[in-house]
Amino acid sequence: MTERICYACGERAAAPATRCDCGEPLWLDTDPHDFDWNAVADDPGMWRYAELLPFDSPGGVADAAGGTPLLRLSRLDEFAGVRLHLKDEGSNPTGSFKDRGSALGVAAALESGVNIVGTVSHGNMAMSTAANAASAGLDCVVLVPDDIPESRIDLISQYGPRLLRVSGDYAALYDRSLELGVELEIPFYNSDVPLRVEGQKTTALEICEAFAPGVPDAIVLPVSSGGHASGVWKALRELKTAGTIDQLPRLYFAQAAACAPIAEAFDAGDDAVSPVEGGETIAYSIANRDPPSGTRALTAARETDGGVVAVDDDEIRAARGAIAESGGLSVESASATSLAAIRRLAVDGELGEEDDVVAVATGRGVSESPPSSERATVDRVDIDELGERLGSR
Amino acid sequence: MTERICYACGERAAAPATRCDCGEPLWLDTDPHDFDWNAVADDPGMWRYAELLPFDSPGGVADAAGGTPLLRLSRLDEFAGVRLHLKDEGSNPTGSFKDRGSALGVAAALESGVNIVGTVSHGNMAMSTAANAASAGLDCVVLVPDDIPESRIDLISQYGPRLLRVSGDYAALYDRSLELGVELEIPFYNSDVPLRVEGQKTTALEICEAFAPGVPDAIVLPVSSGGHASGVWKALRELKTAGTIDQLPRLYFAQAAACAPIAEAFDAGDDAVSPVEGGETIAYSIANRDPPSGTRALTAARETDGGVVAVDDDEIRAARGAIAESGGLSVESASATSLAAIRRLAVDGELGEEDDVVAVATGRGVSESPPSSERATVDRVDIDELGERLGSR
Repeated sequence: MTERICYACGERAAAPATRCDCGEPLWLDTDPHDFDWNAVADDPGMWRYAELLPFDSPGGVADAAGGTPLLRLSRLDEFAGVRLHLKDEGSNPTGSFKDRGSALGVAAALESGVNIVGTVSHGNMAMSTAANAASAGLDCVVLVPDDIPESRIDLISQYGPRLLRVSGDYAALYDRSLELGVELEIPFYNSDVPLRVEGQKTTALEICEAFAPGVPDAIVLPVSSGGHASGVWKALRELKTAGTIDQLPRLYFAQAAACAPIAEAFDAGDDAVSPVEGGETIAYSIANRDPPSGTRALTAARETDGGVVAVDDDEIRAARGAIAESGGLSVESASATSLAAIRRLAVDGELGEEDDVVAVATGRGVSESPPSSERATVDRVDIDELGERLGSR
Repeated sequence: MTERICYACGERAAAPATRCDCGEPLWLDTDPHDFDWNAVADDPGMWRYAELLPFDSPGGVADAAGGTPLLRLSRLDEFAGVRLHLKDEGSNPTGSFKDRGSALGVAAALESGVNIVGTVSHGNMAMSTAANAASAGLDCVVLVPDDIPESRIDLISQYGPRLLRVSGDYAALYDRSLELGVELEIPFYNSDVPLRVEGQKTTALEICEAFAPGVPDAIVLPVSSGGHASGVWKALRELKTAGTIDQLPRLYFAQAAACAPIAEAFDAGDDAVSPVEGGETIAYSIANRDPPSGTRALTAARETDGGVVAVDDDEIRAARGAIAESGGLSVESASATSLAAIRRLAVDGELGEEDDVVAVATGRGVSESPPSSERATVDRVDIDELGERLGSR
């Protein structure tokens, strides 16, 4: 199951290649023909889908990856303009969907006998890779930008990885680390490498199993590198190949307007995604100006009759507030782009109020301040006057 | 199922009483006789145990309460001195076990037709109650101390509750809010009221089902008000009554040495817990100098042949670091008291290396800084020298 195949041209390649000669990213060449929902395993979280994964759980914290709640949040229907379901990836052990890919990456490393893994990240992926490595007893190297804030260092370093602040062109590190990784036998689990994409398939497997024998009308998720989008698309293709689902839900991807290369390519009808300059946004964790799986995500949106939507910071802020105040969940701004995009698609008539739509909330709002831009006004009262005050509400 | 009974003297009382005339807290008078593991429901999270709960899920975020991972973290065995299992309550929707009780409380409020709930808290319980109320469309009033830090206000207020800063004796608010709640028909879900305890039973139900047909040798959890401890004990009693388990696991409770009224009563052989003066500790969220269910927790420890252990801040810090660096989980200091207590019990010979022991990690370390007291040293490197640096590891 370690042979790899190009989604775009169909060429095959052997591990550890991550890119096809045509330039597009490779994914694992899996054969899902025998799969059906009765074949799921009695294992925790994402390992339920062992049949569709190349490795078994390494145990420890990896056992907690996936198996996240899919919530019907009807109080958000009016805001969203659809029948809203939310996939709460914040309940993963380090608070984001990244644990799905990290868990599988660590499983692969243990299987192949290496004692170290690496990643290029200063956000959720860094914490997730370091945590999963720690639990498995593997060394871990995390390459972070030179100007990383100290608060991020604290969050990542608690799991005991080796952090390296790298000066120079941080964007070039994605490719450079993969090259060095091959040379030095350090598997680098960057955002859209085949094993990470394979683990991230399980988000969509869980969603589809919950809707079985049907599927939701659409699944909407934030897109940054395109790795999660690719995993979700791959899962749907495999379920279709296996005959487990008859039709694919439409896939929509959300970007922050300030940095939206995939949405721009979609709107322009381009065949490939080009880098953009990119600006500041509160959804900084998905502000990827040159997404390595951008064209793959673009293709996923087109082939499923979906789309790619850019939403601005005001829309993101409103969505994040609505999820907290009407849904009872605190999600990071990047995650709130899903709901913001759904609202926009509903206003534009592309989604309707009878549509069952899943917003994937990719991570908990832990490293961000709460959504309200202004501090709440809080009344003061003396305990002796409390009855009067509460009684007059 | 709304009749209440005193664990201590067996007297009954009707809702909304929370205390028996004897002074001890009441719990719901449930009849578990028909329960067995085959009777669990096909519902999400804690609602799997509908048979043992007085209300069904109200839907929304309440559906995500419970169903938390129980992880076998063998890399912590050496530190712990036992076969270590960790119950990761941080995966609950607001990051702590409090969601179990809040979800049930909101279900009860909806059932009885009130449109508001309240709580006295400035920590995890405040966020949890506000979030669950928001998801159910209920108003929520949270009574916080006058000197609450602004950062806490931000965390709680994102769910849109009414916050009231109360001046005067904050400790007196526990009882005062319950009185006012009855008068004004605002159900106050304080830490150990009967419905919250009932929801918190499900932590132990999940643990026991995972070990079925056996039980773990011991369950260890932090104790503050004694509400969670009471819920766990009640669950074990019900399973025993139903014949679902043959023997009870020993219950051990952990306190921070700086504020340990229950541990002091246990060590002194007292029949009841008395208030202490209490000092500062990094496990501030369990520093309860006058725990309302303290005597009930003390009784639970004695009747299950367990105990109550006070651990100091150095032990807590070491345990928190070990959980992150060898377990891959970031837990709050209060949660790390479980592992610190297990280590102490193993050193004292009360737990052995063949014992299967469950440490309940009650919450995620989101509102605290990471465990390392000193900032990690991070090397710097230029991208052009990365190969050399990584190669020489």
